[in-house]
Amino acid sequence: MPASPIGPELQRLIDLLAKMPGLGPRSAKRAALYLLKRRDQVMGPLAFALDDAAKKVKSCSSCGNWDSIDPCAVCADVERNAGVLCVVQDVGDLWALERAGAHKGRYHVLGGLLSPLDGVGPDDLNVGGLVARASDDAVVEIVLALPATVDGQTTVHYLTEHLEPVGVTVTRLSQGVPVGGELDYLDEGTLSAAMKARRSF
Amino acid sequence: MPASPIGPELQRLIDLLAKMPGLGPRSAKRAALYLLKRRDQVMGPLAFALDDAAKKVKSCSSCGNWDSIDPCAVCADVERNAGVLCVVQDVGDLWALERAGAHKGRYHVLGGLLSPLDGVGPDDLNVGGLVARASDDAVVEIVLALPATVDGQTTVHYLTEHLEPVGVTVTRLSQGVPVGGELDYLDEGTLSAAMKARRSF
Repeated sequence: MPASPIGPELQRLIDLLAKMPGLGPRSAKRAALYLLKRRDQVMGPLAFALDDAAKKVKSCSSCGNWDSIDPCAVCADVERNAGVLCVVQDVGDLWALERAGAHKGRYHVLGGLLSPLDGVGPDDLNVGGLVARASDDAVVEIVLALPATVDGQTTVHYLTEHLEPVGVTVTRLSQGVPVGGELDYLDEGTLSAAMKARRSF
Repeated sequence: MPASPIGPELQRLIDLLAKMPGLGPRSAKRAALYLLKRRDQVMGPLAFALDDAAKKVKSCSSCGNWDSIDPCAVCADVERNAGVLCVVQDVGDLWALERAGAHKGRYHVLGGLLSPLDGVGPDDLNVGGLVARASDDAVVEIVLALPATVDGQTTVHYLTEHLEPVGVTVTRLSQGVPVGGELDYLDEGTLSAAMKARRSF
């Protein structure tokens, strides 16, 4: 068998790029070629940014958001309503809610969902921190912004049970027709939920 | 407007990741979250691999392939037939031909295609190097493995003209039905080319 035309340094780079979500073995090769052609503009800065972020970005000790300061910029923002905590599965969901400007309070990142099938239990998630924060007298409402999946609903049930003794109001996102969504393309579960939760004008 | 929930170090990483082919602004965020969760296994090694490859991987001074040694491993391989040069548009095409094991000679990477519309002329490509290499007495055949596009065919015509005085045999890849390809799904151009170039058993 002939030697590979790709040297060891390049092959290692391709193998690591291929591990990223959204890139496979082929697109990793294309990305490596792209980067080699833009060493000063992209490749060097990316190497630095990765190293810099790996060293500086930490999980916020209060809410679990990623930031280079602790508490994170969201927790440190005094303009925000400290009385409402929005519980999300992951930091990506926090970013999505912030992009929408949908929540003016603080957050709590669970770091996953309860999943008996995948062996994810309460100890694997930041549940203790949530109960402790919810016990703070300043907190009046916990919004569970978790996905409407089996694992999401399992987690919702577990959390409502454990937040009940704290005596805080627990709410969840409404379910229904997405804005701009055609009824014809929606699944039966969503349509039934939207009909059940119908509102008067 | 509230402060962004994404800190400057993380935002810079996301912006750089979003420049890579195959990743957009949204998938770059997902990739950044993925990397932050795998600092020691992927993020750190990727930062090192990028830096290392940016410093060590160079364009082969003979054929234009990327490698950390010069001449590259393909040019340095004495088992290869030095008499046949395969001309490709880019290093990715060289890798593709090597993956197929389709060529046992050496390569010449043009670094692009002639494109009057995009302002790419002969001086932007490694054409001078090709004519010099083709003039070597050891070289008997030049295979033009260029795409069957307008720019590809423009480049083929230009190269055949400039290689004629050298007195070397110039060939190109055959056109026809791809292996495993259904006739019904092929475009008319490919079908006509395959019919014109039909062969007897």
